[in-house]
Amino acid sequence: MKNKTTSYLASLLRAKGIWRFWIGFLIVSLTLPAELLAQKDPWAADKAFIRKIFDRSLSDGQSHPWLRDLCYGAGHRLSGSAGAEKAVRWAKAVLDTCGLDSVWLQPVMVPRWERGAPEVVEVTGTPKRKAMRLPALALGGSVGTGGKAVVGEVVEICSWEALDSLGRQGVTGKIVFYNRPMECRHINTFEAYGGAVDQRVSGPSRAAKYGAVAVLVRSMGLALDDYPHTGTLRYDSAYALIPAAAISTNAAERLSALLREEKNVRVSMTLNCRTLPDVLSYNVIGEIRGSLMPDKVLLVGGHLDSWDVGQGAHDDGAGCVQSMEVLYLLRKLGYRPRHTLRCVLFMNEENGLRGGLTYAAAAEEKEEIHLFALESDAGGFTPRGFSFDADPEMIDYYFDQVSQFEEVLRPFGLMLWRGGSGADISPLRGQKGLLAGLRPDSQRYFDFHHTAADVFEAVHPRELQLGAASMAALIYLIDKYGL
Amino acid sequence: MKNKTTSYLASLLRAKGIWRFWIGFLIVSLTLPAELLAQKDPWAADKAFIRKIFDRSLSDGQSHPWLRDLCYGAGHRLSGSAGAEKAVRWAKAVLDTCGLDSVWLQPVMVPRWERGAPEVVEVTGTPKRKAMRLPALALGGSVGTGGKAVVGEVVEICSWEALDSLGRQGVTGKIVFYNRPMECRHINTFEAYGGAVDQRVSGPSRAAKYGAVAVLVRSMGLALDDYPHTGTLRYDSAYALIPAAAISTNAAERLSALLREEKNVRVSMTLNCRTLPDVLSYNVIGEIRGSLMPDKVLLVGGHLDSWDVGQGAHDDGAGCVQSMEVLYLLRKLGYRPRHTLRCVLFMNEENGLRGGLTYAAAAEEKEEIHLFALESDAGGFTPRGFSFDADPEMIDYYFDQVSQFEEVLRPFGLMLWRGGSGADISPLRGQKGLLAGLRPDSQRYFDFHHTAADVFEAVHPRELQLGAASMAALIYLIDKYGL
Repeated sequence: MKNKTTSYLASLLRAKGIWRFWIGFLIVSLTLPAELLAQKDPWAADKAFIRKIFDRSLSDGQSHPWLRDLCYGAGHRLSGSAGAEKAVRWAKAVLDTCGLDSVWLQPVMVPRWERGAPEVVEVTGTPKRKAMRLPALALGGSVGTGGKAVVGEVVEICSWEALDSLGRQGVTGKIVFYNRPMECRHINTFEAYGGAVDQRVSGPSRAAKYGAVAVLVRSMGLALDDYPHTGTLRYDSAYALIPAAAISTNAAERLSALLREEKNVRVSMTLNCRTLPDVLSYNVIGEIRGSLMPDKVLLVGGHLDSWDVGQGAHDDGAGCVQSMEVLYLLRKLGYRPRHTLRCVLFMNEENGLRGGLTYAAAAEEKEEIHLFALESDAGGFTPRGFSFDADPEMIDYYFDQVSQFEEVLRPFGLMLWRGGSGADISPLRGQKGLLAGLRPDSQRYFDFHHTAADVFEAVHPRELQLGAASMAALIYLIDKYGL
Repeated sequence: MKNKTTSYLASLLRAKGIWRFWIGFLIVSLTLPAELLAQKDPWAADKAFIRKIFDRSLSDGQSHPWLRDLCYGAGHRLSGSAGAEKAVRWAKAVLDTCGLDSVWLQPVMVPRWERGAPEVVEVTGTPKRKAMRLPALALGGSVGTGGKAVVGEVVEICSWEALDSLGRQGVTGKIVFYNRPMECRHINTFEAYGGAVDQRVSGPSRAAKYGAVAVLVRSMGLALDDYPHTGTLRYDSAYALIPAAAISTNAAERLSALLREEKNVRVSMTLNCRTLPDVLSYNVIGEIRGSLMPDKVLLVGGHLDSWDVGQGAHDDGAGCVQSMEVLYLLRKLGYRPRHTLRCVLFMNEENGLRGGLTYAAAAEEKEEIHLFALESDAGGFTPRGFSFDADPEMIDYYFDQVSQFEEVLRPFGLMLWRGGSGADISPLRGQKGLLAGLRPDSQRYFDFHHTAADVFEAVHPRELQLGAASMAALIYLIDKYGL
């Protein structure tokens, strides 16, 4: 085939006889000195250095052993928990060994929510049928059920319209069961998540508005399995705070099948969770001071907190160790950055974003300039590239600048897009710098996200190390060429 | 930063004042009708159709259920085995239900090698130390040890130079242990495999040349684990045929450590494998006849045989079901191909390539024109793109043609490269058509390749289905636009 646009243009040129164009082109060509035409790849030195970054990361990378230490040393680490405190101490201690110019803790007051004793969610039995236990996790931030079970008839809801049309009459006194699955046709699974997670976030209050007594949510995962996925909810204080839990996708399928077979299916829910007063925690920060522009910061980060199940390996232990390794790798390779390179391990992304908000507020106060911030918070899978975000006034300019790097990054399998960046760095958006997110392959992420399955062994060492190297490569390019 | 070439060009233009160029450019711009400048994306219809292919594959794809049937119904399926025969019958039966224009079996005489009773490889004990069993698999095609153990002192070899310098004196009567690991710094793990597999393929005869009695090879994998990886060897008939087995990477590390500690480490090997006379088997073929150019074939395929461990899920059950699904998807979506689309499930890729050779010879005889052939034989992982190969005279032309598709394929995460295609389709190279290989993410492939771990559960349903959709998209584009 011919390229349609080109061939149309060519025929147009022929038809109109625009020989002037070609004469102009010829003149330009003739004025280019021969040595320029034969010039070497202007990116050769950069490609060679980035090759070193990847070599080192794949052969002697620290992300994977560090992740093992974090996952087995601190375990899961919800804000305010003992695990989170261990993680802060561990991260500071490791950064202290990385030969950085300074490492410090930034105090952050964080919410403290506790799951308490394991939740019990079951379909109550009938004379014809035994009770059926549903694998469940209370949603983060949910109120408990006050030491006793909440029992109610279940009503299944697959759209907001369906909820609204049922109204108070259909919902009062009942347990609303949100069962709209993630859309499997999205290639990027984060889009599927984005299209379904409103059920978990705002579902409890939208059900409470119509008098529901509790909420069950189908887990945010594409696989059919037995892992419930927790995650945060957001109560609207205009309505009653009702308890809410996620059940596994298999359990959601079973419950839905039962609702098709029987009337008046009842569920009993006992949640032992509670919210305690805020406590002091920390962002962990390390930096290499810039040699030319120390007042301009290039930030790389992830979040140190996790949900209170599994080990938070993909979410976001991976992003933390990768961010630490960016500074470690560049230091080990003897790179002397022009800008200040700063690694920030944020606290409390999962249920409050207090770390990101505190960091951005402090930066504002200290008048620190963040030229660029890169977050890794999409799992430790093979990197596919980076997505870039900025103030609408600036994004065209920035994206043009970084697009030139694609030639250098593409041999490492990396593409560049416009898109989101990361939750923790989003409060820096007001500084009008460039924000970016590492974009690993997303197919398996929601098999682990916010579940007991998100453990160290779920992270492939090479995939993790490739992510760290990719991040270091981008930071290197932006440091060297600016924006 | 500025793009260096562009800014150099710009300064040159300024310096020389080549306003003629800009006038030429202006004239061209003015002669372009406004509606052309505002014209719609010429690929819009293609993008929409390919979107349908992906939608269907992700929501209602057959590759994953078919792979379950193949893995659990036929199991592993080395050429000439009962499993291979079951797989042939199963594949034909499934293709018969796909609404194709014809489905047939192409007879192929295949080699028959049998492992026999499980091999026993162990480091013999000493008064100070117990015997140590090493997880091992005889290499495909190896001779057995004649019903008794071969015992010999082990000599570790990490380069061909080291082997040659030891020579007959250092090797005669010994067991040569090849322990050069795959190079972890390659990003594409197939390059790491390519750089180490000579030990497995030619190592036995190169050791026999110097009088070795048997060979052990470190498994071809990047992970340290307990799975031995089998695979074919190639005897040089100039030397004695000596038995050869792969040991797991962990076992290789342990054996190497022992060799550093002790002198005269001896290994005992009992292999019960043997080669039997060739037997009749089949390539399984199905096609949709082209509406405009039925004599020109676009082929898509994988290989139906596997090694005799695990279930051959990634290698190459995945490629088979994906190839079947390409025709199934296009048929289900009502696409009427211009060229003949043919799915070929080749027999005997692993230890003879007889299916590929037989197919190409028959095509030659029937004067069939293969304009394009695409193989999937690199695992059922997330597709990263395609690599293209052809006769050196033709590859520039072909690659220019398909490069135009990158705009359409890139939103689906696919890139296009020059590179290899697939073993089974390589005998078609003489036809001077275009050959291609699906290139899935390679990081995890050699964790499973030729091992007992290559089972159905190791294949992620979405990753597999994305590969099938990607292949269908490329076949669609080449069918529609030709080459």
